[in-house]
Parts: sequence; C-alpha cells; structure tokens
Amino acid sequence: MLPVLSLKTHLTTRQDWCITPLQFSLGRDRTLSRMNIGVLTISDRSAQGERADASGPLIIDFITGRLSAVIARQAVIPDEFETIRDTLTAWADQDDLDVILTTGGTGFAPRDVTPEATRAVIQREAPGMVEAMRAASLAVTPHAMLSRAVAGIRGRTLIINLPGSPKAVRENLAVIVSVLPHAVQLLRDKPSAEAGHRLA
Amino acid sequence: MLPVLSLKTHLTTRQDWCITPLQFSLGRDRTLSRMNIGVLTISDRSAQGERADASGPLIIDFITGRLSAVIARQAVIPDEFETIRDTLTAWADQDDLDVILTTGGTGFAPRDVTPEATRAVIQREAPGMVEAMRAASLAVTPHAMLSRAVAGIRGRTLIINLPGSPKAVRENLAVIVSVLPHAVQLLRDKPSAEAGHRLA
Amino acid sequence: MLPVLSLKTHLTTRQDWCITPLQFSLGRDRTLSRMNIGVLTISDRSAQGERADASGPLIIDFITGRLSAVIARQAVIPDEFETIRDTLTAWADQDDLDVILTTGGTGFAPRDVTPEATRAVIQREAPGMVEAMRAASLAVTPHAMLSRAVAGIRGRTLIINLPGSPKAVRENLAVIVSVLPHAVQLLRDKPSAEAGHRLA
Repeated sequence: MLPVLSLKTHLTTRQDWCITPLQFSLGRDRTLSRMNIGVLTISDRSAQGERADASGPLIIDFITGRLSAVIARQAVIPDEFETIRDTLTAWADQDDLDVILTTGGTGFAPRDVTPEATRAVIQREAPGMVEAMRAASLAVTPHAMLSRAVAGIRGRTLIINLPGSPKAVRENLAVIVSVLPHAVQLLRDKPSAEAGHRLA
Repeated sequence: MLPVLSLKTHLTTRQDWCITPLQFSLGRDRTLSRMNIGVLTISDRSAQGERADASGPLIIDFITGRLSAVIARQAVIPDEFETIRDTLTAWADQDDLDVILTTGGTGFAPRDVTPEATRAVIQREAPGMVEAMRAASLAVTPHAMLSRAVAGIRGRTLIINLPGSPKAVRENLAVIVSVLPHAVQLLRDKPSAEAGHRLA
Repeated sequence: MLPVLSLKTHLTTRQDWCITPLQFSLGRDRTLSRMNIGVLTISDRSAQGERADASGPLIIDFITGRLSAVIARQAVIPDEFETIRDTLTAWADQDDLDVILTTGGTGFAPRDVTPEATRAVIQREAPGMVEAMRAASLAVTPHAMLSRAVAGIRGRTLIINLPGSPKAVRENLAVIVSVLPHAVQLLRDKPSAEAGHRLA
C-alpha cells in the first residue's frame, strides 16, 4: 500500500534510533493531495530494543487504511527532551511533513517529556485537538485525564501527541482522523504577499 | 438599539482599518451595570474591502439583543500579529472595555495568528471559556476541534476569540453569553489595598 | 481519622499564615503506599481571619475518607502571587508531598492569581485534569467555565487547583479522586540512569 517514491533515506539527525529500513520521500511537491505523515515512537524501552514498538505500526496501519497518506518518516527514539525536540524540528523544517504523529511519553512518569519537547517546537498551539481526544477517552476511562498530550503547528507541519498504549492510540486517532485532510489543506494554503487573496 | 453616548471616535491606533462611523464611549464610569463591548473582526479580505464583514455585525446584534451592553469599539483589521496585538492592547488599556470579542484568524491557515496575538496581550488565561465553546461546537461538527481560540484577561478586560464563520460565531456566543455579566462583575471588583474586603 | 505520625511542625516558609496546630509528616520514605497530601487554602479573607476556611477542611475530609492519604501540610494564605508561588515551591521541593490541592483564587476577580502562581511553579502541565473537572462542573452550572484552574507537576509533586466554593470543591474532587493513586504511583517511578528499565 505504501508507495515507494524515493528510497533515499534522510538520516537528518543522529537521534534517529532504530530507524526502519523503509523510508519514503515525496520531495517538496505540495500540490499532491496525498498527505506526508511522520510517525515518531517515543519510548526508552523500544528505543533500546527491549520492547517491540506496537503503537508506531498501529498508527501507520490506521492512517494509511483511512486516508490518502504516505508514511514519509518513521523512527523510534528514547524519552529524551533534546532528542524529541531535534527530531520534530528536523522533520518539520527539512522534510516537508504535513503531519507528525508521536506516540508515548505523554503521561506522569518522570521521563515523560513529549509534551514539553513538543511545546518547545510548535509555533501555534492547537488545543482543540487534544481536548477532543481526551474528552472522548474520558468516556472510556477516567485515566484519560492523565494524558498531557499537546498539539500544534510548526511552519506547515501539524504535530500531534498520542498516548503510548495501542488501545489509547486507536481511540485517539479515531477522534482526529476525519479532520486531518481539512487541517492539512488549510496548512498548505499559500501565505500571499498580497494579503486578502486567501480564503478566510 | 445602540445608545449613542458619545460620538467622539477614539482612533487610538493607526491600525483601525475600515473603522465604522458609529463609535460609542461610556467614558471611565465603571459603576454602570451596562457592559462596554469591543468587537474586532480579523480578516485580510474584509479589511481590504473584498468581502463584507458578516460576523462583526452578527456579534453586535447577538450581544445587544441579549445583554445590557454598549458596543464601544468596532473595527476590521487584517491578519497581522502586530496589528491585532496593538489593537487589543489599546482597547484594553485606554478604552475601558469590559469585553473584547474577536472574530476570525483562529484556524490553521498560515496567516491565522489571532490566538498568538491574544496570548501576547492577556495576563491571565481563561481556558474554561474556550474549552466550553469547543465542546459545544464539537457536538455539531468535528471541525470544531480545529479552533485554536484563546480567552483571557488583561487588566479589567476580558478578551475572547471567536471563530470566523457566522454560523460558528452564533454557536460559540450562545455558550458564553449567559456568564458574561457575572464575569464582568468579577473583573470590575476593586482590588483593595486592604486585602480581605473583597468577596471571594 | 488522621494518623499522627509526627507532631514536628515544619514551618518551612514565613508565609504559612493561620497554620493549623495539627501537622503531620511522613518523612522521606516514598516506599509507603500512603500518599502525602498538602492542602493550601488561598483566600485574603480567611488568611485575615475574617471568614472561616470551609474548603480546606472539606478537602481533608473528602480525601482521607476515600484514599490512603496523610495530610502532611495545611495552610491558609492570602491571594498574593509571591506567597502562593513560594509556598508551593517549598512544599514540593522540601516536603516531599505527592499531591498539593489548592482551593481559591482561580476566578476572574482582580486578586485571583492562583493559576498564574501555579504556572510559575510547575514544570510539566497536566491539562487533562482541569479539563475533566471543568467539563463535569459545566454539566451543573455554566459558571464552571469561569474556572481558570491549572494542574501540573513539579518534580515528584502533582499540584492541582480547585475552586474556592465548598460546593465546587466537592464536585471537582469527585472527578479526580479515583485517578490520584495511579498518578502518584507514576510520579514516584524512579528515573533510572539506565533508561529503559521503567515501565512505559
């Protein structure tokens, strides 16, 4: 299902631990309706190979099964603030991703710093997406209120934190999947020197 | 319906594009129960006269039809961070408004920066108001989660971002209109040198 | 009901106005499953003795009646930013509390600065807890949207703002009480030099 448009791997940062051999690139042509997605698993144990990454592959299946999307980046990294921040920055600034979905590191454990690293990277917060995900999960379990997930925009890239557990990932993705195409369409809108020529 | 208390127009900033001829001022008498409201439409196209401002007038009708309120300021400005920030600052600091309602610029398009300009101005955030508006709109459409609206307080002035579309404006105003009088009453509370003389 | 483990009072900061004679300490043993709780009432009038503190005692009854918890700190302080900030900092950094529950100062009155002082202290925000409390209260009264409460983590201590009124305190506590043990368990998780040995 995943179209291989380029096999050139962009090892843009040294932090791309456990990077999968399959890498895709759509180049910089944003006229394609297909979305460029990055999937970033954030987990000390998975980064060290002590535990298989279940949530990353789940996200890929879920997204490619429902949207016209290409998984352009995928990596598994540890719960390190700098690593998360630098990976998100590189993927947003150099790799032309439309959406980056992270999984893991959004809870209360001392090393859970995904939201803080995400906040350090985004330029415009999108609180409505995480509010909606938490509200939906709260109907399933009160523990949903412990999710500290953040969503926001850096340049043209939407970054969304998902929880770490596969079950919660599935629940949360179900909430946002339908609005992703419209969100990406808005983000791709050309900022014009002649203000006023955009659709409000 | 709008009582003309003063026709002196306060063109406090050069950014007041497309300012309407009708301007009101209640002066600085905060003992009046009537609320002073500012309505700020933020839209490149409306500011350039390419599209009629539908949401600004809708807000005025909605508010004056339901509350004891005076529209003390109204303007249409483009989606420029500095313009939004400076207009909000001037209206809050010099014009004694109780509430400023903005419409537009809260979405995902590259030029949507109303929330960021609002955050730069407010001193105390009021997240409950935007959470409530988004939750209510989410029952109507999943696209409500793309609203990045912010609400907060600068001095004695409550600033609330509303979406750009008239339909969404109406939905969102319906959520908050009933609490505005109490919110303004609390904001007008005199901060006393003798702490302890206020109602908690 | 409150087990007196130590009667040594820790007057850690000069800001502990109206400190109650009963003080408890569990020392630094975090292997106990019992939670160390601090209850901080923030109210000018109660701090000056003009009004009895109803919400502080209510929180203590509510928590000790439902959880295996020790009230290790209790104080009543005025609505002063620095006092709130310094008390929260001392309780989190020196007193090994698992959870600090504040009551009061979360509204729109000019002296309501509890959320701002809390934000100045926390290192990791926990928005899901306050979103859940506000959503539940909103089903009771639209005024719930005026709560500006913040929740977040400093070191190993979870700090949660509750509203000032006893009725709202009870409603809000009912929302979060069931997740507190799990939250504290996660916070106590040892950050290991050998990353990867924690449960994700």
